[in-house]
Amino acid sequence: MGDLHVSLDRAAGGMAAQISGQLRTAIRQGRLASEVRLPASRELARDLGVSRGVVVEAYEQLVAEGFLLSRVGAGTMVAPAAAIRSPVTEAAPGDSFHGHRATSPDLGAFPRERWLSALRHVLATMPSDALDYGDPGGVAELRQELAAYLRRVRAADVTPGNVVVVGGVAQGLSLTLRALGSPLLAVEDPTSMRQLPLLRAAGVELVSVPVDGEGVDVAALARSGARAVLLTPAHQFPTGVVLSPGRRAELTAWAAETGSIVLEDDYDAEFRFDRDPVGCLQGLAPDRVVLSGSVSKPLAPGLRLGWVVAPPKIAELVRLARAELDLGSPVIEQYALAHVIRTGGYDRHLRRMRREYRRRRDAFVGALAGHLPEVTVLGVSAGLHVYLELPDGWDERTAVEAARTAGIAAEPVAPMRVAPGPPAMVVGFSRLPGHRAESVVGALAAALAGGASRTLRPYVRT
Amino acid sequence: MGDLHVSLDRAAGGMAAQISGQLRTAIRQGRLASEVRLPASRELARDLGVSRGVVVEAYEQLVAEGFLLSRVGAGTMVAPAAAIRSPVTEAAPGDSFHGHRATSPDLGAFPRERWLSALRHVLATMPSDALDYGDPGGVAELRQELAAYLRRVRAADVTPGNVVVVGGVAQGLSLTLRALGSPLLAVEDPTSMRQLPLLRAAGVELVSVPVDGEGVDVAALARSGARAVLLTPAHQFPTGVVLSPGRRAELTAWAAETGSIVLEDDYDAEFRFDRDPVGCLQGLAPDRVVLSGSVSKPLAPGLRLGWVVAPPKIAELVRLARAELDLGSPVIEQYALAHVIRTGGYDRHLRRMRREYRRRRDAFVGALAGHLPEVTVLGVSAGLHVYLELPDGWDERTAVEAARTAGIAAEPVAPMRVAPGPPAMVVGFSRLPGHRAESVVGALAAALAGGASRTLRPYVRT
Repeated sequence: MGDLHVSLDRAAGGMAAQISGQLRTAIRQGRLASEVRLPASRELARDLGVSRGVVVEAYEQLVAEGFLLSRVGAGTMVAPAAAIRSPVTEAAPGDSFHGHRATSPDLGAFPRERWLSALRHVLATMPSDALDYGDPGGVAELRQELAAYLRRVRAADVTPGNVVVVGGVAQGLSLTLRALGSPLLAVEDPTSMRQLPLLRAAGVELVSVPVDGEGVDVAALARSGARAVLLTPAHQFPTGVVLSPGRRAELTAWAAETGSIVLEDDYDAEFRFDRDPVGCLQGLAPDRVVLSGSVSKPLAPGLRLGWVVAPPKIAELVRLARAELDLGSPVIEQYALAHVIRTGGYDRHLRRMRREYRRRRDAFVGALAGHLPEVTVLGVSAGLHVYLELPDGWDERTAVEAARTAGIAAEPVAPMRVAPGPPAMVVGFSRLPGHRAESVVGALAAALAGGASRTLRPYVRT
Repeated sequence: MGDLHVSLDRAAGGMAAQISGQLRTAIRQGRLASEVRLPASRELARDLGVSRGVVVEAYEQLVAEGFLLSRVGAGTMVAPAAAIRSPVTEAAPGDSFHGHRATSPDLGAFPRERWLSALRHVLATMPSDALDYGDPGGVAELRQELAAYLRRVRAADVTPGNVVVVGGVAQGLSLTLRALGSPLLAVEDPTSMRQLPLLRAAGVELVSVPVDGEGVDVAALARSGARAVLLTPAHQFPTGVVLSPGRRAELTAWAAETGSIVLEDDYDAEFRFDRDPVGCLQGLAPDRVVLSGSVSKPLAPGLRLGWVVAPPKIAELVRLARAELDLGSPVIEQYALAHVIRTGGYDRHLRRMRREYRRRRDAFVGALAGHLPEVTVLGVSAGLHVYLELPDGWDERTAVEAARTAGIAAEPVAPMRVAPGPPAMVVGFSRLPGHRAESVVGALAAALAGGASRTLRPYVRT
């Protein structure tokens, strides 16, 4: 049948499917135009040398799908609607969201064996009903383990009923802000730019409050009129400042007096190197603080698994928000995390990584002191990045490029600021083994002092 | 030290932690009131019989956490903020979201071994960087497998660039409606009540359009003024009607003429028993239809893994919405699903389940015909539930209770309706083995005719 361009592979079988497939393609590509009448099934069957039933089946399939119309007494034709459309073209997925962050953990250290073993345990033991639609606030076993863990390790004031399992801190913040009715929100200056689109998408207006050597300026916060504030008390991003005891007290007093809420992003809390971890703010004022944390640093961002600890009413609103949005997080990995925490595997992994990251930090900071004494290194007591304050006159972007060329994950600080500040960059050391610190930092110093000096603005040592 | 109620277990060690822990509890419980001054470290050390350094360490920990304040020359006192709070009480998690649905799959048939094997493969082979923050629109490998699968099995018109991985149909609908600017949305009457809170939370106004034996009434849809419509063309919920070819053509013509969008919930598409699956509507009008599907029926709802197939601009908006909400779905299970599809395991599982569900349907429908001939059974050609239209005068809720008592998952239809309709219920057969159909349906019939008749309104056979 020349017109329809149907050619059959008799050896392959499935004649009806071959016919319908080729006709579908022809209609889609416009070779068979809208409202064209097809040959009667008897005719086409004869032309193709198949039984009439085969053609009827192919036509019926395309009629059912809407590509063809069949009217009694009027034969079969290409449906009008099928032609009214432009072809779908490949959307460029882009990669604007990809890539290392200076603050990402060393993913080569992800405990694959331990995680697989937990998954094996879960798949061998979980009841089938656990695979059904579940509590959108999270699997009870995980909420229980998280509550115990956060009480023990973060000095949080929490019961399983205050915990909502979420797909990471990003989702935790999004849903909490919506639950709070999108209040005027204060953010630290400087702050992570990555979160700004997310915060704006949650419908909040933003106001900036400066950070100094003790953390957020609470007096400025009080003047701002904000009724919520987003903080990283354990290790401020990007400056690395730990919120001081005095500021903690001022902050919880402000929250209590004004009825405001503190959103505590428990950023880098697991990796505090030089003393015991500082307890979270939530433990101090559990009715005023919403704590968000995740396994992104301890395990991997790709797990998309985190938690919100909130006063009961807010926790219930966040849980309802998940019920109205996505019905909760996948359950198998929730059980796996509960198992890893319960059996002590999470603690063991964290202890191992804390030791290793401390070695990397020491090597990195030591190399910086040796090769780049003019740079001030801040925020070293915790976390996977340090904050490098550059001498006045240095060009931030050039320094960041030099660091990246040397193989160091780095980000410029100027775009994170509202008020101007000294040139600075955030650099991550989680993926830099101790034995390579000397050579990598040496290369960075050479690039900054030598070859790159042409693109540097002249700098003045202070 | 009587006042502070600190008692040490010397055998247990960790003296400083014991002291700080007991003081923290005392402050939380209000036994140590706000602004109470603590004994000097030297005094407390002497009273407890420990070195002064131990007490200093305990105090410092609580100062760092904000429970205590320490001022030079003024000693150590309980911080004012620490006491200003009411205790957090256990939030009742409730169970309003739990439980079987009449439409849930048989989770005892979840392919645990196959899934574990896929996870093992992924954990053995995935590059470490795949565990980092990734594309919020989904892992490229999975989008590719899904596009090929949906082209092949659902006759969808799709490339990987049109696919956004989401946490199930619920999230797909939520984000798509937001991406579309929350248009006036038509829903079918009757329809699933479960989705209504989700749809309202996405900010849309709802209008109902009746469903008849061919599916949605497109003329009524056109009159409604809606600019989007949510449909279940493959197997309407609850009636089980498959959208007819004529209505498909009318619908895509309406969408093209009015610039409207059809949200196609590809509900039950995998389980069509009596003929080839009907291709999805999206394949007919890819620039007007947004297709949402998931593995909830084929595998398990607990995986929270699904997809949206949309025109490029809408797909990009949905992807951006995930970037601004939760940064995407967990990656390991995305890779696992890609592996299961690529290796043919997904097809094999579906074939096996289709055979098994068809056996269960046949046994169930046969038993209904034998025991309850006065009931009209509809929607049997696909899916995991049938629609039972009850004789006029029967009481829906009583019938549902009788079905549940007999061990059948059942839901009343009246609450799903806007316009009144005959008494009816939705009953699921996915968990009812064929060999038990006779006895279970027999028990249901006996309950309806006999013991339960006291609570039944008198019924008239028509």
